[in-house]
Amino acid sequence: MDFASDNTAPVHPDILAALGQANVGPAIAYGEDALSKAVEAQIQDLFEAPQARVFFAATGTAANALALASCVPPWGSILAHREAHIETDECGAPEFFTGGSKLVLIDGPGAKVRPADLEEALTRNRRGVHSVTPRALSLTQASERGCAYRPEEVAALTAIARREGLVTHMDGARFANAVAFLGCSPAAVSAQAGVDVLCFGATKNGAIAAEAIIVFNETLADDLAFRRKRAGHLLCKGRFVAAQFGAYLKDGLWLALASRANALAHRIGRAAGDWLSEPVEANQIFVRAGAERMALLRGQGVRFYDWGPPALGEGRLVVRYDQPEDEVDRLCDILAGLRGDEPF
Amino acid sequence: MDFASDNTAPVHPDILAALGQANVGPAIAYGEDALSKAVEAQIQDLFEAPQARVFFAATGTAANALALASCVPPWGSILAHREAHIETDECGAPEFFTGGSKLVLIDGPGAKVRPADLEEALTRNRRGVHSVTPRALSLTQASERGCAYRPEEVAALTAIARREGLVTHMDGARFANAVAFLGCSPAAVSAQAGVDVLCFGATKNGAIAAEAIIVFNETLADDLAFRRKRAGHLLCKGRFVAAQFGAYLKDGLWLALASRANALAHRIGRAAGDWLSEPVEANQIFVRAGAERMALLRGQGVRFYDWGPPALGEGRLVVRYDQPEDEVDRLCDILAGLRGDEPF
Amino acid sequence: MDFASDNTAPVHPDILAALGQANVGPAIAYGEDALSKAVEAQIQDLFEAPQARVFFAATGTAANALALASCVPPWGSILAHREAHIETDECGAPEFFTGGSKLVLIDGPGAKVRPADLEEALTRNRRGVHSVTPRALSLTQASERGCAYRPEEVAALTAIARREGLVTHMDGARFANAVAFLGCSPAAVSAQAGVDVLCFGATKNGAIAAEAIIVFNETLADDLAFRRKRAGHLLCKGRFVAAQFGAYLKDGLWLALASRANALAHRIGRAAGDWLSEPVEANQIFVRAGAERMALLRGQGVRFYDWGPPALGEGRLVVRYDQPEDEVDRLCDILAGLRGDEPF
Amino acid sequence: MDFASDNTAPVHPDILAALGQANVGPAIAYGEDALSKAVEAQIQDLFEAPQARVFFAATGTAANALALASCVPPWGSILAHREAHIETDECGAPEFFTGGSKLVLIDGPGAKVRPADLEEALTRNRRGVHSVTPRALSLTQASERGCAYRPEEVAALTAIARREGLVTHMDGARFANAVAFLGCSPAAVSAQAGVDVLCFGATKNGAIAAEAIIVFNETLADDLAFRRKRAGHLLCKGRFVAAQFGAYLKDGLWLALASRANALAHRIGRAAGDWLSEPVEANQIFVRAGAERMALLRGQGVRFYDWGPPALGEGRLVVRYDQPEDEVDRLCDILAGLRGDEPF
Repeated sequence: MDFASDNTAPVHPDILAALGQANVGPAIAYGEDALSKAVEAQIQDLFEAPQARVFFAATGTAANALALASCVPPWGSILAHREAHIETDECGAPEFFTGGSKLVLIDGPGAKVRPADLEEALTRNRRGVHSVTPRALSLTQASERGCAYRPEEVAALTAIARREGLVTHMDGARFANAVAFLGCSPAAVSAQAGVDVLCFGATKNGAIAAEAIIVFNETLADDLAFRRKRAGHLLCKGRFVAAQFGAYLKDGLWLALASRANALAHRIGRAAGDWLSEPVEANQIFVRAGAERMALLRGQGVRFYDWGPPALGEGRLVVRYDQPEDEVDRLCDILAGLRGDEPF
Repeated sequence: MDFASDNTAPVHPDILAALGQANVGPAIAYGEDALSKAVEAQIQDLFEAPQARVFFAATGTAANALALASCVPPWGSILAHREAHIETDECGAPEFFTGGSKLVLIDGPGAKVRPADLEEALTRNRRGVHSVTPRALSLTQASERGCAYRPEEVAALTAIARREGLVTHMDGARFANAVAFLGCSPAAVSAQAGVDVLCFGATKNGAIAAEAIIVFNETLADDLAFRRKRAGHLLCKGRFVAAQFGAYLKDGLWLALASRANALAHRIGRAAGDWLSEPVEANQIFVRAGAERMALLRGQGVRFYDWGPPALGEGRLVVRYDQPEDEVDRLCDILAGLRGDEPF
Repeated sequence: MDFASDNTAPVHPDILAALGQANVGPAIAYGEDALSKAVEAQIQDLFEAPQARVFFAATGTAANALALASCVPPWGSILAHREAHIETDECGAPEFFTGGSKLVLIDGPGAKVRPADLEEALTRNRRGVHSVTPRALSLTQASERGCAYRPEEVAALTAIARREGLVTHMDGARFANAVAFLGCSPAAVSAQAGVDVLCFGATKNGAIAAEAIIVFNETLADDLAFRRKRAGHLLCKGRFVAAQFGAYLKDGLWLALASRANALAHRIGRAAGDWLSEPVEANQIFVRAGAERMALLRGQGVRFYDWGPPALGEGRLVVRYDQPEDEVDRLCDILAGLRGDEPF
Repeated sequence: MDFASDNTAPVHPDILAALGQANVGPAIAYGEDALSKAVEAQIQDLFEAPQARVFFAATGTAANALALASCVPPWGSILAHREAHIETDECGAPEFFTGGSKLVLIDGPGAKVRPADLEEALTRNRRGVHSVTPRALSLTQASERGCAYRPEEVAALTAIARREGLVTHMDGARFANAVAFLGCSPAAVSAQAGVDVLCFGATKNGAIAAEAIIVFNETLADDLAFRRKRAGHLLCKGRFVAAQFGAYLKDGLWLALASRANALAHRIGRAAGDWLSEPVEANQIFVRAGAERMALLRGQGVRFYDWGPPALGEGRLVVRYDQPEDEVDRLCDILAGLRGDEPF
């Protein structure tokens, strides 16, 4: 039973089929083909943002780093949660793409940034030319601990950012899971809440390798086309990334897949009960039951990652869009069994 | 009749089918899956280089820039032909990935570097710490003018490079076409001829987006894994790039496709006769018949790029692996007709 | 009464005079002159390190950033105290010079790194290629809160660093003040305690603009000459930086100036009594008496910087090498008066 | 007799004396002191540009690279003469500071860019996002072959640059020698001729280490303060660089020194007669008399650099501002003697 990551998932059949459908004769390269343009329009519609510019990329790290590089000069800083993927899991990609800007780290429960913590971070080391200047806020939706920012939370944060001259980037590697949980429109929690650029992921939720950088704030788009090419992220056969997104968005597939994963995660969450260290919102479950109990869980054949030092006894379980239902059943039984054995 | 680029080609059915075959259940992410390892072994075998390390990437620009960054420090320089793709068509990707190293440009017919020209370039601006120091030689196989380096030509150049402390990078976006033309083993014109790192392309010759950085010189590989991740070029669902390469190499598909394109190009070359400005070796045909005749050719519905200023009257025609034979027939007829109209 | 910074100090007459003495006829440029070589030897002697390589620079930020760039690859990280100058006051210079490496921040009293805190920091985000890899430890001697690492403290930290494959950089902008306080040899608290590269400052302690990067670990020196030139920090008339260092080191001037400043700081520290928020060791005094009392102090004409948010009520006072003794007298009187007014 | 470089010169006594005059008590650091502001105003007056912003730096390489970084994005290119110092002698500093932009090289006699050559260079590799985009023109005044651009030549070049959206940078390491030769106002050949940013050197012409980046185009200045600090080029004791410039400009010292050097160079030029390979305009003399005769010249004790491969038989002689007159006398005699020996 593999609950280690949604990265290990296979590709959804509809998305794979779309590649075949796009594979008809020659097509103009580098994203100038008809399909790419059609899918860009599809995304503009979905986000109710006809002015938005869309740049496809093959990885979430690339999407985030390219977007951030369009937001900050080398001597600017990016404010982000201490557990943000851009800080912990991208091997310094933001620093590379921005020419060496600095991430200023913010703590907060649920791996979410709170307004007061953002305000505090904005006061650190403000010494004119002697310090880096805050220029971007980065939010992760859903967060690295599976929590979703509500539209009004996003709006409150982007308002502070705008007041201070920062632009707001949203890492949406699991944006689908957040929207499925929130039940709002995609626009409500991004463009309409003041987000300037969203990295909208499909890879973790059924695609092969497809991410869309959606630039709502047009002033940021001018350089992105050059940055993407220069970083080797402009795919020559662009239609095959667009095709993935086309199928992903068609008839709400993206939300259906995310909703399924979320629902299974919520079931697991209920089974985990007071072992939960975070409320379950999207498709991640955080369990903190002590090192011994986590070892027992693992002993039952459940694959997951320790979150933090193993001695802490916390683990992260992720439900894939294609997770077999019976694996979830079994996991729930195991959890119930382990919890029933002893008062906790 | 589109002879503009091999980038516009669709994907070969076998390669697309391989994605479906790889799409079975979850698989470890980030290239640690069994298929990725099997295809790496397949490549080591093909190049008779069991020690070689293989890093997949999705674009040729990424592969070249990552490889070059492993070859030169920021204050090193890369010697390359003036028409090399890394100079003209990658929007400065080598400069970005290397942290600002410099390309030192070499002239030469056929877009090939000759030993004497390399020797001359090595003498330029050698002023200790005041100048950048030559650290890498980059060769394109086949060259941007469709010419293939013979194994002994490569060996002569890499010998000079090694004598001067340079490593040799080979841009093999059309390596298949070069090998198909040369009739030698892939190893003979790369590892065995002294090449340290080869970017072996599949995208132009039938894949979706698949390039392999093959590091023959192991000392260069240590940093590449970090560089690739940091550049956003480590695909999480690595099996789907490996699958493309697996199908590409299976039963010699890569050579069959390249041989077909080459053969058609040679037919066109014969039809072009003394209009040719380069001998046809791989799948590119360079025609220099003056601006007027090139306009006539285009007027017949033949799509191609001007090569250099339009007034020069030179054009590049590229044959795709899937180019319909009847398009080649018609092009040959058109060329014969245009040439027959008038003494040239 | 200006206690804001040692950066505002004039130049010591001996150092200024040395410029005139060096100003005789033409001299080979770029540090190849006889005086530069003689002063390099003088520094090797002082640090009992005949193998050390010396690179002069004009600013402390340049010295630190150049040294760090020789210690870490772009995907490496630098572990440093959260209050380190390289983090707070260099506008991201380390990130710029290293090509985008990351500073990993460590807390600890006195702005000093402790072994246990270093060990903890070494465990953060160690996910192979997904995270930056710790490659350098940076210590500030004396620290940003005026505290000096004892030789055995340095040795304990460099031992951990070496065990983990990190090299150790020491920011010695106030190295003279630290050594004057410790009463040990310069070598005992640098090379002999395991430091790989020391940025030995003279600017704050009487020079115009003179810093020496002293590379004890020769493997780091190979690239530094190129990095320095490429960063515009190789002065063509090198003799005039060397001359400053020559005079600075002659007859122990550097230690005499630092000892004087330290002694005055210690007097102020005694007058501040329980208002001190740090023990006074070098030439900095940290007073934390609440916002109101700090305002009173300022109201008496004492210039100093708030340290942290003004509401915190902490200030930093720095004694310059040339601080007039009567200013110190008056400051002590003011402090005694303010403290006497009320029980604290 | 050392005619190798103006870098080897000592410092003019007035400039050294100015350091002493500035050395009175503490002064606000980082260029915020009264003297720095006064000298900035002096420079604005000299260049008849009250809106100009002035940034001091310690080396010409730093000044050039900082200025260029404010002119081009990483994916922009800088058009410059193939022999420009920024290409040949700065170890890639422009590439480092700009984040990896590319220098596009232009040929032309006298190491000067001509309008037609600039126009041609602007047409190279213009393939949208696939190529770097020209964004800056860099001119060297006087050029690396000692030739001065006339005001109308500069104006013609900057007009082309502006038409194409490029800004113009002027490397003025020997600006004084150019102005002394031209007899025009400093403004006439810089701001008034369309130059956006001038690096005005003093180091080669009598200072210790003093260069001024003069930003006429205010839109470029916003980032420069941050770039300078981040590069370690903001000197804390700024008054001592300003003081050098103050003395350099006082009573026309800068022009007097340059005029003297130029006059001596012109005498040498007359003695060299038809051995000259360039007209003598500023303080450099280019002699091309064949390898044998150059060896004879060197055999007489004359120090100079070969220019190009020694076999070419060309040498560069530079006259320092302080060159003893009798050395020039002797050199002229030697040249006359060598030339008289044989018909040439």
